[in-house]
Amino acid sequence: MAGLRTLYGNDAKTQPGLKSNFDVDYVIHYKIPVPEAERAEAEAAFVQLVKGLANVGFATEVRNGGKDSLLVFTKIASDRLLHDQVYRYRVQDWLYGVRVAAPNQDLAQYFQDEPVSEAERLRLTYLLITKPKNEGGAGITPKMGQWKNVASIFPLHDHAFNSHWIKQWSTKYYLDDGDINQIRDRFGERVAFYFAFLQSYFAFLLFPAAFGAAAWLVLGQFSWFYAIVNCLWSVVFFEHWKMKEVDLAVQWGVRGVSKIQHPRPQFQFEREAQDPVTGEIIKVYPHFKRFRTQLLQVPFALACVGVLGGLIVSCFSIEIFITEIYTGPFKQYLTFLPTVLLTIFMPTLSALLTQLAERLTTLENYETHDDHQASFVQKIFVLNFITSYTPIFLTAFIYVPFGKILVPYLDVFQLTAQKFTTQEKPLPTKSWEMNPDRLTKQVIYFTVTAQIVNFATEVIVPYVKRKVFKTVEDVKSEMSEKNADIVKKDVEEEADFLARVRNEAELDEYDVTVDYREMVIQFGYLALFSVVWPLTACSFLVNNWVEARSDAVKIAISSQRPIPWRADSIGPWLNALGFLSWLGSVTSAAIVFLFHRSEHGPNGSPWDISGWALLLSILFAEHVYLAVQFLVRHVIHKMDSPGLQKERAQRFRMRKQLLETTFGAQQGHDAQDETNGPGLSGGEKITRETLEEEARQLSIKGSGSPEQLFWQRQRGPSETIQIGRNLFSEIAANQTKHKTAKE
Amino acid sequence: MAGLRTLYGNDAKTQPGLKSNFDVDYVIHYKIPVPEAERAEAEAAFVQLVKGLANVGFATEVRNGGKDSLLVFTKIASDRLLHDQVYRYRVQDWLYGVRVAAPNQDLAQYFQDEPVSEAERLRLTYLLITKPKNEGGAGITPKMGQWKNVASIFPLHDHAFNSHWIKQWSTKYYLDDGDINQIRDRFGERVAFYFAFLQSYFAFLLFPAAFGAAAWLVLGQFSWFYAIVNCLWSVVFFEHWKMKEVDLAVQWGVRGVSKIQHPRPQFQFEREAQDPVTGEIIKVYPHFKRFRTQLLQVPFALACVGVLGGLIVSCFSIEIFITEIYTGPFKQYLTFLPTVLLTIFMPTLSALLTQLAERLTTLENYETHDDHQASFVQKIFVLNFITSYTPIFLTAFIYVPFGKILVPYLDVFQLTAQKFTTQEKPLPTKSWEMNPDRLTKQVIYFTVTAQIVNFATEVIVPYVKRKVFKTVEDVKSEMSEKNADIVKKDVEEEADFLARVRNEAELDEYDVTVDYREMVIQFGYLALFSVVWPLTACSFLVNNWVEARSDAVKIAISSQRPIPWRADSIGPWLNALGFLSWLGSVTSAAIVFLFHRSEHGPNGSPWDISGWALLLSILFAEHVYLAVQFLVRHVIHKMDSPGLQKERAQRFRMRKQLLETTFGAQQGHDAQDETNGPGLSGGEKITRETLEEEARQLSIKGSGSPEQLFWQRQRGPSETIQIGRNLFSEIAANQTKHKTAKE
Repeated sequence: MAGLRTLYGNDAKTQPGLKSNFDVDYVIHYKIPVPEAERAEAEAAFVQLVKGLANVGFATEVRNGGKDSLLVFTKIASDRLLHDQVYRYRVQDWLYGVRVAAPNQDLAQYFQDEPVSEAERLRLTYLLITKPKNEGGAGITPKMGQWKNVASIFPLHDHAFNSHWIKQWSTKYYLDDGDINQIRDRFGERVAFYFAFLQSYFAFLLFPAAFGAAAWLVLGQFSWFYAIVNCLWSVVFFEHWKMKEVDLAVQWGVRGVSKIQHPRPQFQFEREAQDPVTGEIIKVYPHFKRFRTQLLQVPFALACVGVLGGLIVSCFSIEIFITEIYTGPFKQYLTFLPTVLLTIFMPTLSALLTQLAERLTTLENYETHDDHQASFVQKIFVLNFITSYTPIFLTAFIYVPFGKILVPYLDVFQLTAQKFTTQEKPLPTKSWEMNPDRLTKQVIYFTVTAQIVNFATEVIVPYVKRKVFKTVEDVKSEMSEKNADIVKKDVEEEADFLARVRNEAELDEYDVTVDYREMVIQFGYLALFSVVWPLTACSFLVNNWVEARSDAVKIAISSQRPIPWRADSIGPWLNALGFLSWLGSVTSAAIVFLFHRSEHGPNGSPWDISGWALLLSILFAEHVYLAVQFLVRHVIHKMDSPGLQKERAQRFRMRKQLLETTFGAQQGHDAQDETNGPGLSGGEKITRETLEEEARQLSIKGSGSPEQLFWQRQRGPSETIQIGRNLFSEIAANQTKHKTAKE
Repeated sequence: MAGLRTLYGNDAKTQPGLKSNFDVDYVIHYKIPVPEAERAEAEAAFVQLVKGLANVGFATEVRNGGKDSLLVFTKIASDRLLHDQVYRYRVQDWLYGVRVAAPNQDLAQYFQDEPVSEAERLRLTYLLITKPKNEGGAGITPKMGQWKNVASIFPLHDHAFNSHWIKQWSTKYYLDDGDINQIRDRFGERVAFYFAFLQSYFAFLLFPAAFGAAAWLVLGQFSWFYAIVNCLWSVVFFEHWKMKEVDLAVQWGVRGVSKIQHPRPQFQFEREAQDPVTGEIIKVYPHFKRFRTQLLQVPFALACVGVLGGLIVSCFSIEIFITEIYTGPFKQYLTFLPTVLLTIFMPTLSALLTQLAERLTTLENYETHDDHQASFVQKIFVLNFITSYTPIFLTAFIYVPFGKILVPYLDVFQLTAQKFTTQEKPLPTKSWEMNPDRLTKQVIYFTVTAQIVNFATEVIVPYVKRKVFKTVEDVKSEMSEKNADIVKKDVEEEADFLARVRNEAELDEYDVTVDYREMVIQFGYLALFSVVWPLTACSFLVNNWVEARSDAVKIAISSQRPIPWRADSIGPWLNALGFLSWLGSVTSAAIVFLFHRSEHGPNGSPWDISGWALLLSILFAEHVYLAVQFLVRHVIHKMDSPGLQKERAQRFRMRKQLLETTFGAQQGHDAQDETNGPGLSGGEKITRETLEEEARQLSIKGSGSPEQLFWQRQRGPSETIQIGRNLFSEIAANQTKHKTAKE
């Protein structure tokens, strides 16, 4: 990890402005367009921007941002405003049930008891900048409408923390809760949840890694025992995470924040209407219209399957033809053809379809960020599912069982090729024989090679790219003498700081979705195909150790500091995990059935012989899976956890307190279960007094109603007891009489 | 329905004490044992009983209950005590989140705004009688420990209401929400939920009844189209009910009451410990021990399968042998043998196993009523599942496909029979041919005949039995002259009333579980087998119309008035419904596949030919089912309902109110989404003031820190704007220079 350390170390050395953030909360990167008309418009908008910020209570400073842009620095001008905001949002949390107890009305005491974390301050500041004017914000939404020249609004990195963070993590074997809490305080719960998930997943991987290694040595591939254990593991992991997620949310005090939705500024409403319940004016977009747009997801999914699946199937077929049938000239070069085709087309098509997915999601016009994000994630998952797993599915369930039937059709390539060559005689081929190791090789490729390639493209390439681009641009800027001009005008004490901020303004925003996607797809390989190569988990274990650190580096160095949003779960990815875990039970069963050597050779075409047995084993595996899931869920549901205990304690405290204020302090102690009835003496007093009073009144009025008479016959409990005793003896006498009469 | 009317009418005539309840809340039926020692003990306990009741604030009256028993009448002595209880429990509801708003502190006003319903009063009174002394109750738990002579504690029927209720329902075609609400006010939410479910189920049955009739005419039996529609219907019904349930719970203000658990007095704790969270002393029974007991459910289920399944299989085999193979003497009598065997053994074994289930559940030693009930219901469902569906499963999936292979083994009966006869020659038999109508006949039997028989055993038999028993006992009592003695001693005004109470004391408690069971099992026939006979739903429609009325009669006449417990759902039966609905997709697919005549004759043994096709169709059907369920759930989740609207309105009102008290009335209007930021003017003032103040202080102190200097460069927004504008023109100049330089 020395490399990572020097990576940061270098940055620190080259950027002396890392020491202080000059109390800046947010930097607004304002682009100045070149055409004159637009520039005038931009200037007017800029004036509005600063005025708007000042109006809600921000102090502002403007500096030249380089490359035709301004940097507007903002901070909340007074602590009173900040505390007001914090108090308001905490009250809102309480009203929505996120906080159990209402905030204390004594503000000074309150902020001492529950100090404002950095993440909270930054989040509320960002909301203050972006939320609409009628809700008390400045209404500045980057890249939209009036603010189309606002390139980004970002907080500044705390480089002292970052550098410490990276150094600490790179020397640690295992991340604990304290590390995650640190992330939470700095980058908010949304990012913290990702790292918590990564940590939890990493810890859980230890078991399949150890068991997988043992299984690989003892049981070999395609072991049904490994498949069962693996499925069980994935169920336990999934259910455990679901609990852990709730637990963390409670510990972090964010359980239920997903109920407090942030409206999407891009939402287009069709009409305004009065809410029948609250009487407020709400913006309405008909469900039906949205549903109609959502139906486009079906052709979209089909297009994904068609385009990506088609590409994969073609490359797959060409590959088989060239490597396993073709023996003619240029074979050594042609072997690379499918890889080249995939490398060229796959990223292009993926990017295109991702864009399409984004467009489609925007068209669906959701009212809130969360809905939008969930819908987008769903589409992204479909895309990635196809690109990641189709090749293995093809090999396992088409190539192996149906190879003998289908491979002869690959002659089409031969015929096509022949058309382009002038040769008369057919291209030299050999008769096809199934390559039994193909599946294993493929799984190893996807679980080892691809992970390494991924790491490289994710961390090293952007870093190198940035370095190269920066050098090129530095040269270019210096040539145009613009940059030199700017730097010259910077005040000496600020120069380094401004240089660094200009640099951070150019960085990408950090998108946690990308990292989630990677982990979920990885989990999929483990759940779906690790029975082919039980060492899969070992590879992932190593990969994820590096992944956590490289993601940290990505946040600290290669991205703008993320806005610390809250979250109470990993969101839509949870469903994806559950789906993969379930599908794992089906594919594992099918793969074991098809490839387990003791019963069926890998060469056999088992279709005709035992289709029903295959289906039966799938059906069986799936239902066992569902039953086990039900059981595990039940057991985990019964378990206690620190978060739930904390919540219970909070609720208990609150109830006790409220009851004490309602009923007085003495009776508060038995608040939890049942509230007190009247005391012993009190009860009797009431009974006697009321009865005597009634009796008195009756004697004045003369005889009462039948009801009153009924309750007057026995005055007080002592008379009831006396008469009851009389009845006892009467009945006893009767019983004895009856007995003797019988005898 | 004239019959029902006269049924009630007769009772009313024979019991003139129906007019008034003499303000009695509860009647405690106290048995006096015959042995002298026990009687003395019972007398002491009786004294304690009356004292205990008086201590918590009850007025008491005692009367002779006839048949060696006493009747202790109780009512809450003062309105203040009642209101105190109601207020406490409503506060508790609020603390547990059942009520949205806290009860008003002004009690007089509060009880005018939200009056106490009869059900609420009776429920709280019952709790006051039964809850432990340390929680402020009288701690009287019937049939347990000290109170083993307390036979029952029951409220008195409101016969005026009952008679009106029965008359009204028996002349109505369709029950509406008003009718259900009436039930709720009188008998509590637990009973009301049953009737609401029944009503909802009845309304939903209209569709399959109409569609089934059409399908029967047009499509015939075993139609895949009918199967699909039926499955879809069951999904929609199930999901709709889940929503409806929540909706009703919200409308009735009981959503979440299942969180407020009633402790089971029978719970045996192993040790007392301190709750780590609340510091209270709690009773602990180790989870592990309970789990060990729960494992007994497995042998229990196996025993059920073994015993009941064995009985059914035996009778089934004997029946086939006698009706379809045997041709010897006494055939006409022997045909009844299996029915006789079933009629004798089935109820006996069922009762035995039900008792076993009860014992087992008690052994599992749950802490709360709800857990206990849920576990018991689970076992009961397993039992009833076996007794109800096994015969049809046997016919559909064993008799038809494997009949040819298995029937020859039935010769064992012949051999056995021959041993008992002295005949030398073999008993006369004919060669077996499958009876293709067997399945249909069986389904018709279970869905029509059995329902009628059920109705008879449920309503008419107990009524007749009661009448007969009563006459016999009257005669007996009169002979022993005891009854006459008692009646003679009754005061004239009370005589009729007491006679009626003595009668009610002898009635059974109403158990809603029995009625739920019946409906759920009925739903099972529809979901699982109605594809065999599409008219099933028509039969159920008629049956359920009668069922609702006969259940009403059962509550009003044949049972003690139920204690009006609350509930927020139909509880564990919901899972049973979901399970049956899911299983329906599997069995329907299998039955259609096996019996659909166009492809496979009912005589064929499809196993060898197309086992995989059968499995594939099941697999397919099941997954389509799950997908549709997912979709329907999603759609229903999006829908609004009166209950949810009501809840939303309540929450909105509460938030608005709370925010107004916290932040003052002006800012309360935008309470729902985001709380207000500082006003326009306020913000600017703060900025300027603080900045100016800072600047002043700085000028006193000399130069400040770099941070202070940074924020001092532009004093206030106007300077920022000015400098920003300068930067605009500078950059513009630069851009122009650059452009011209290029040109």
